[in-house]
Amino acid sequence: MDQLSPQEVFRFLLALAVLLATARLFGEGVKRFNQPAVLGEILAGIVLGPTVLGEVAPKLQYGLFPLEGNLAVARDGLTTLAIVLFLLVAGMEVDLSTLWRQGRVALFVSLFGLLVPFSLAFSTAITFPSSIGWEPGVDITIFGLFFASALSISALPVIAKTLLDMNLYRSDLGMTIIAAAIFNDLIGWVVIAVILGMMGTGVHGQGIGNVIFLTLAFVAGVLTLGRWVIHRLLPILQAHTSWPGGVLAFALSLALAGGAFTQWVGIHAIFGSFIIGVALGDSSHLRQQTRAIIDRFVSFIFAPLFFASIGLKVNFATNFDPFLTLVILAIAVVGKTGGSSLGARIAGLTWKEGLTIGSGMVSVGTMGIIVGLLALQYGIIHERMFVAIVIMAVVTSLLSGPAMTRILKPKKPKRFTDFLASRSFIPSLKANERKSCIGELVSALPLPQGFDPGTVSEIVWEREQLMPTGLGMGLAVPHARLESLPAPLVAVGISRQGVDFDAPDGEPAFVVVLLLTPSDEDSTQLELLADIAHEFHDEDIRNSARFTKTYTEFLALMKSHRL
Amino acid sequence: MDQLSPQEVFRFLLALAVLLATARLFGEGVKRFNQPAVLGEILAGIVLGPTVLGEVAPKLQYGLFPLEGNLAVARDGLTTLAIVLFLLVAGMEVDLSTLWRQGRVALFVSLFGLLVPFSLAFSTAITFPSSIGWEPGVDITIFGLFFASALSISALPVIAKTLLDMNLYRSDLGMTIIAAAIFNDLIGWVVIAVILGMMGTGVHGQGIGNVIFLTLAFVAGVLTLGRWVIHRLLPILQAHTSWPGGVLAFALSLALAGGAFTQWVGIHAIFGSFIIGVALGDSSHLRQQTRAIIDRFVSFIFAPLFFASIGLKVNFATNFDPFLTLVILAIAVVGKTGGSSLGARIAGLTWKEGLTIGSGMVSVGTMGIIVGLLALQYGIIHERMFVAIVIMAVVTSLLSGPAMTRILKPKKPKRFTDFLASRSFIPSLKANERKSCIGELVSALPLPQGFDPGTVSEIVWEREQLMPTGLGMGLAVPHARLESLPAPLVAVGISRQGVDFDAPDGEPAFVVVLLLTPSDEDSTQLELLADIAHEFHDEDIRNSARFTKTYTEFLALMKSHRL
Repeated sequence: MDQLSPQEVFRFLLALAVLLATARLFGEGVKRFNQPAVLGEILAGIVLGPTVLGEVAPKLQYGLFPLEGNLAVARDGLTTLAIVLFLLVAGMEVDLSTLWRQGRVALFVSLFGLLVPFSLAFSTAITFPSSIGWEPGVDITIFGLFFASALSISALPVIAKTLLDMNLYRSDLGMTIIAAAIFNDLIGWVVIAVILGMMGTGVHGQGIGNVIFLTLAFVAGVLTLGRWVIHRLLPILQAHTSWPGGVLAFALSLALAGGAFTQWVGIHAIFGSFIIGVALGDSSHLRQQTRAIIDRFVSFIFAPLFFASIGLKVNFATNFDPFLTLVILAIAVVGKTGGSSLGARIAGLTWKEGLTIGSGMVSVGTMGIIVGLLALQYGIIHERMFVAIVIMAVVTSLLSGPAMTRILKPKKPKRFTDFLASRSFIPSLKANERKSCIGELVSALPLPQGFDPGTVSEIVWEREQLMPTGLGMGLAVPHARLESLPAPLVAVGISRQGVDFDAPDGEPAFVVVLLLTPSDEDSTQLELLADIAHEFHDEDIRNSARFTKTYTEFLALMKSHRL
Repeated sequence: MDQLSPQEVFRFLLALAVLLATARLFGEGVKRFNQPAVLGEILAGIVLGPTVLGEVAPKLQYGLFPLEGNLAVARDGLTTLAIVLFLLVAGMEVDLSTLWRQGRVALFVSLFGLLVPFSLAFSTAITFPSSIGWEPGVDITIFGLFFASALSISALPVIAKTLLDMNLYRSDLGMTIIAAAIFNDLIGWVVIAVILGMMGTGVHGQGIGNVIFLTLAFVAGVLTLGRWVIHRLLPILQAHTSWPGGVLAFALSLALAGGAFTQWVGIHAIFGSFIIGVALGDSSHLRQQTRAIIDRFVSFIFAPLFFASIGLKVNFATNFDPFLTLVILAIAVVGKTGGSSLGARIAGLTWKEGLTIGSGMVSVGTMGIIVGLLALQYGIIHERMFVAIVIMAVVTSLLSGPAMTRILKPKKPKRFTDFLASRSFIPSLKANERKSCIGELVSALPLPQGFDPGTVSEIVWEREQLMPTGLGMGLAVPHARLESLPAPLVAVGISRQGVDFDAPDGEPAFVVVLLLTPSDEDSTQLELLADIAHEFHDEDIRNSARFTKTYTEFLALMKSHRL
C-alpha cells in the first residue's frame, strides 16, 4: 500500500501549517496597504520557496517543501483540489443576469479588452520569439497563443474582490466591469481550451474539433439544462437531506465531477468547476448560509494554500529576467487598459468612464498565473517566463485598485471605530451621572494641541442640556461639533451601574459613546451617529458590549457581526 | 518536479467526486433508520472498495481507487488531513467545565468503562493469541495492548452526535456520558501513545519515557498556558484581521502544527489536533459562526471522505472472519456496557441510569477504527482483524442509539411539518373567505376511513366562530380536535390575495395552516401550535413562505433556517 510514512505525515502537516499561517499573515499584511490578500499569499510562497528560505536554510526548505517524492505528490493533490474549489467559488460569484443587463457595453469592453492585448502579445511573440523567451522544440504558434492568453485573460475573483473592497461592486460601472470580466473569462478559457486541444493534451488524445465541441457542449449543457436541474434539485436536497450537509456535499461533488469532465476532455479541470459554480450560484435556492460556508473555507484556507504554493515551484531571484518582465508588463498594461477603454468608448461611454473600466480590467492576476502554470507544466514556457508572468500578474493587480480609486475617488463609509483609539476606551466608568461621565470620557480623548479638556467638556455638556442624548436601550451618544478640530474623535465608556442620560425609555445608559466632529463637516457627524445607531441596533450586540473588558474585545465585537 | 499527470488529475478528481457523493448518499440513507451518518459513510467505502465494486468491475475500481502509485499517495495525504481536522472538530465539542461538574461519576464510569473491556480484551489476547489472530513475529504484548485499546476507547464524536440527535445532550445523564467519554478518550490516547512509544515509532525514535513525558507536557501545556494564550489571541485576531478568515486560518494552522508535533513525538497526529481543538473550543471568544464554518465543512466534506476511504483499503468479504468478529464484538459490548454500568453504580447511580450510561458508552465506533487503522499500518494486526474491528465498531454504534432510546424513551419534539403530506400543500388557494378556505384545506387532507370532509370542515368552522384563528402578520391557524383521529393531520395553503381570518392586526392571512389533532391528546395540539408560531416568528420566513410554489420548496424553507 503506497501511503505517507509517519515521518512524511509529520513533514506534510508541518509544511501545511507553515504555508497556511505564513500565507494568511502576509495576506493580512498587504491588506494594511489596501492591497488584495492574494498578493501577500503569493509573496508568502516566494519567501518559503527556493527564492528566500531555500537560500537561507536549504535543508529546512527542502525538508518541508520538496519538489520530488511522496510529499510533492500529496501537496500537488491538495493544491489541485484547492484551485478546483477556488474556481467553484469564483463561478458562484458570477451573476448571469448582470451579463444580460450590462450586455452591450460589457461585450465591447471585454472583446477589445481581450483582442487588443492578445494580438499585441501574439504578434510580439511570433515576431521576436527568441527575445520573448521562446525555446527551440516548442511549437511557435502554441507558444504565442499561450503567451497571449496569459497576458489577456482577466482575473474575475481579484476584480470582484477589489470592487467589493472599494464599495464599487453594486455601482453601474462596477457591474459593467464585472460583466466584461465574465465575458473575458469565458472567452479566454475557450481560447485556452482550443490551444490545449491543439496540443492534444486530452486524456484520450482527441482532436481539436472534438475538444471544442465537447467544451461548448459542456458549457451550453451546464448553463441551460444543468442549471435547470440544479435549481430543481436544490430545494429537494434542502427538504430531504441533513442541512446544510446535503447541499454542501452536492455542490462540491458536482464541482469535482465537472472538473474531472473538462480534464478528461483535454482542457484544465478548473474550467469545469468554474462553469458548475456559475450554474450553482445562479440558483436562488442556494441559501446564503451554504454559499458562506463554501466561500469562507475555500477563500481563507484552500485559496491561500494554492497561491502560496506557486512560489514554492521556482526560484524567483535566479529566474528573474528584467527585460522580459518589463516587456510582458508593458503589453499587459497598455493592451488591457487601452483595449478595454477603447471598447467602452466605442460603446458610448465617456473617456473617464472608459479609463476607470480599463484600470478595473487590468488585473490579469490570478488567472494569468494559472494559465502560466499550465504552460509551465506542459513545457511551453520556461521558468524565467513563468516568473515574469507571476510578477506581471502581481503588479497589474497592484495597479488596479489605486488606479480606480484615483479616477473615481469613491467614498469609503465612515465607521466610528476608525476614530476610536485604544486609550479612549474606558471599560469601567467611574462617573455615575451625566456631567462627570462626559468629563471622564473627554479626558480619555487624545485631544490635539490647543484643546482644553475642561472647555471641550463644557461644550458637550451645553449640547447635552439642549437635548439629552440617551437613545434608550442602554445606549447614550453625547456629542458636539468643535471648530478647527482636524479629525473626528471618539471615546467609549462602559458603565456597570448605568448612567442616566434621560433616555425616552427611562433606562440608564450602560454604553456611552462620546463623539466630537469638526464643525465644518456637517455630514460626518450624521454619518457617524448613524453608524453607532446601526452597530448597536442588535440586542445581542448591546448585551455583549456591556460586558466587554478591553479595547480589543470591543473592537472584535464590532467587527465580528459585520458579515 | 513530481506531480500528478493530467490523466491522474482526472482520476483523482473523479474518484473524490464519486467517494464524496456516495458517502453522503449512504450517510443520508442510514439516517432514515435513525442511525448516525458515519455508518453509511463507512458502508459507502466498502461498496466502492475491493469488497463490492472490485468484484463487479475490478478495472474501474482499480482505476479510481488504486492502492499504489501517485493517486494512492495523493488520496492518503488528503485523508490524513481530513482525519486531523475531524479530530480538531471533535476536540472543539469537548466542554472542559462539564468534566469538572460531572467529575466524580464520570471518572468512575470512564475508569471502569475503560479498565473492564481493556483487561478482558488484553487477557483474551495473551491467553489465546493464535485464535484471536496474532501472527508470529509481532510482539505479543504490543499486539495485546493494541487489541485492548481498539476495543475499549470510546468514540466521543459518535457519542456526542447520538446524544444530540436524541435530544439527550443537555440532560444530566447526557452530560455524564459525554464527560466519561472525554476522560476515556484522553486516557485511551495516552495509553496508545505509550504503546506507540514502546514500538519506537517516533520520528526521531525516542524512548518510551520521552514519549510519555512529551505527550503529558504537550497536553498539560496546551490545556493551561496554550488555552490562556488562545483565549487572549482570539479577540485580537478578530479585531485586527479579516473576519472570519483570520480566526479560521489560525485555528487550522494551529491544529496542523499540533498534529505535526504529536506525530513528531511518536504518537499519532490526530492526538495533537484533538487537544488543540479542546483548547480552542473552550474559549468563549471563538464565535459561533467560526465554529459553524469549520464544523460544517469538516463534518460534511472531510469526515465522509476519511470514513469512506477506510473501506477502500481491504476486502471485507474475503477477510471476514465470523468467529473473530463475534469474539471481538462480545468483549466490546460486555466489557464496555458492563464496566461503565458498574462504574456508574459504584458512583451511586441507579442500575437503570447505569445501564443507560453503559449503552451510551458502548460506541467504540470511529475511534476504534482509527486505532485499528494505526495497528494495520504498523503491521501489528492483519486485515482479518481490521475487518472484525471495523464491523465491531459499526455494530456497537448501531446498538448504542436504540438501546438508550429503549431505556429512556426520550420525547422527540413534534414538528408540524412531520404531519404535512405532499398532497396537503395548496400553493394557491382558490377560496377568498374563511369558511370556503377551511373547506378547501380539509378536502386536501388524507382523512382516514370514516371521516367525512363536510363534517370535519363544519367542526373546524364551529371552532373558528368561537374565536378567530388569525394570528396576525399574515398567518392563520384554523384547528380542531377530532375524536378517534389516529394521528395529527396538517394542511398548508398559500393565498395570493389573502383571506380575512379576523386577525388582531386586521391583516389578511397569506399562509393558512390547518391543524387537526386527536381529541385525547391535549398536549399535541398545543405543541404543534407552538411549533407553527415559532417557525413563522421570523419576518423573513413569513415573507418567503408567501411565495413558495411547491411542497418541497416549503419544506426546504422550514428546514433551512433551523440551525
